[in-house]
Amino acid sequence: MWQLYQFPLCPFSRKVRFLLGEKGIGYELIRESPWLKRDEFVDMNPAGQTPVMVDSSAPVILVDSQVICEFLEETVDRMPLISGTAVHRAEIRRLVSLFDNKLYFEVTAPLMNERMLKRLVHRQAPDAAILRGAMKNANSHLDYIDWLLDHRRWLAGPVLSLADFAAAAQISVSDYLGGVDWRGHENSREWYAAMKSRPSFQPILAERMEVILPPDHYDQPDF
Amino acid sequence: MWQLYQFPLCPFSRKVRFLLGEKGIGYELIRESPWLKRDEFVDMNPAGQTPVMVDSSAPVILVDSQVICEFLEETVDRMPLISGTAVHRAEIRRLVSLFDNKLYFEVTAPLMNERMLKRLVHRQAPDAAILRGAMKNANSHLDYIDWLLDHRRWLAGPVLSLADFAAAAQISVSDYLGGVDWRGHENSREWYAAMKSRPSFQPILAERMEVILPPDHYDQPDF
Repeated sequence: MWQLYQFPLCPFSRKVRFLLGEKGIGYELIRESPWLKRDEFVDMNPAGQTPVMVDSSAPVILVDSQVICEFLEETVDRMPLISGTAVHRAEIRRLVSLFDNKLYFEVTAPLMNERMLKRLVHRQAPDAAILRGAMKNANSHLDYIDWLLDHRRWLAGPVLSLADFAAAAQISVSDYLGGVDWRGHENSREWYAAMKSRPSFQPILAERMEVILPPDHYDQPDF
Repeated sequence: MWQLYQFPLCPFSRKVRFLLGEKGIGYELIRESPWLKRDEFVDMNPAGQTPVMVDSSAPVILVDSQVICEFLEETVDRMPLISGTAVHRAEIRRLVSLFDNKLYFEVTAPLMNERMLKRLVHRQAPDAAILRGAMKNANSHLDYIDWLLDHRRWLAGPVLSLADFAAAAQISVSDYLGGVDWRGHENSREWYAAMKSRPSFQPILAERMEVILPPDHYDQPDF
C-alpha cells in the first residue's frame, strides 16, 4: 500500500491525489508539515518538500509531484493523463509546468505564506500588498485559462489531462485561501465546476486545515 | 531544423543543448534575452522563459527545458538519458527536479541576478550578502553531490543520465559567475572534470556572455 506524505493545503500533494483517485489506486495519507523540517522526512527527501510517496514493502520512495505522476503514468494503464502524440504530451507537460511553477510562485505560494504559514507558524498578520498582488496574478492566470478554453474542451486539448488536474490543484488551494475572484471568468468557472464534480475531487474538497477555514463557496458545486 | 531560443548563461538552455549534443541532433541557436519580454517571444511562451525550441516547418513549439528533454527522450533513440526501470527513471527525474529547482533557486538564480542582470539590465552593484548566501548554498549542494558520488558512479546510478547534465548545467553557470569554490569537493570535482571533457560540453564552455567574463579555471579541464 502506498503512503503519501502531505498536508491538506499542499497543492502538489493534491495533484498527486487527483491522479491516484482517477486511476483508482489505494493509498494511506500521512500528515507531514514540511516547515517543521522533521529529520526522518528530510532523510527521505533532501529537498524537504511534500509530496513524498512511499511503498515500504518494496521499498520505493518517490519524491516530487511530477516525478510521482510520470511514474504512475508509466506503471498504471487505467485513465492515462499524459497521452497522445509526443507533441501533445509536450503540450500537457508545458501546462503542468506553467501551473506548477508560474501559477504556484505568483499566486498559491504567496497566499499560503501570508494566510497559512504566517498564521500557523510565524504568528504574524498577513501583508495586504502581497495578498493584493497574488489576487491580481490569479486574475491574469484565469484570463489565460479562459483563453485556452475558448479554443479547447479541456486545458491541453480535446481530452481531460494532467494539465487540468495541475491547474485545479493550485486553484483549489488558492480558492480555499480566499485568493480567487471568479467574476468575469465564465469559461474558467464552468471548467472548475466540472473538475469539482469529479469523484477524485470530493474527498479533497471535504478536508479542512486546522484554524484556517475556506470561504463559503469553496466546496459548493455552484459558486 | 530545430531552432533553440536561448542566451549563453541560461542554465536550462544548457541542459537542452547537452541533450541535443549527446543525441547528435542539429539545431540553430537564436539569441533571446527573456528579461526584455519581446512580444513575439511571449506569444510563443506565455511563461516568458528560455529555452523554447521551434521547428517552423512542422510547426512545433516546445516550451520548458524538462518538456523538451522528455520530448527528445520519447522521439530519439540515440543516447537515452532517462532510462531503466520506472523506479530508476523516477530517481533520475527526482535529481533533475532537485537541480532545476532547489539548486537553481538557491544558487544559480541569485548569482545570475546579482552578477548578470544587475550589471546588464539594472546597472546596480551586486549585494554581497546575497552572493555569500548563494556560495554557501553552492557548498551544501556540492556536499550532497559528493555524497551521491560516494555511493554511485554517476549522480543517479551506474549510468550517465539526464541528472548529470541537469546538475552540470546549473553548476557551469554558477561557476562562470564565480560562485563555486571547488576546494574540499574532490568527488564533485572529478565528476565535473569528466562532464567537461564530453564533446557536448565543449561548445558551451567556449561561449562568453558580453561584458561578463568567467574566472580563469572556468573552461580548464584541470581546475
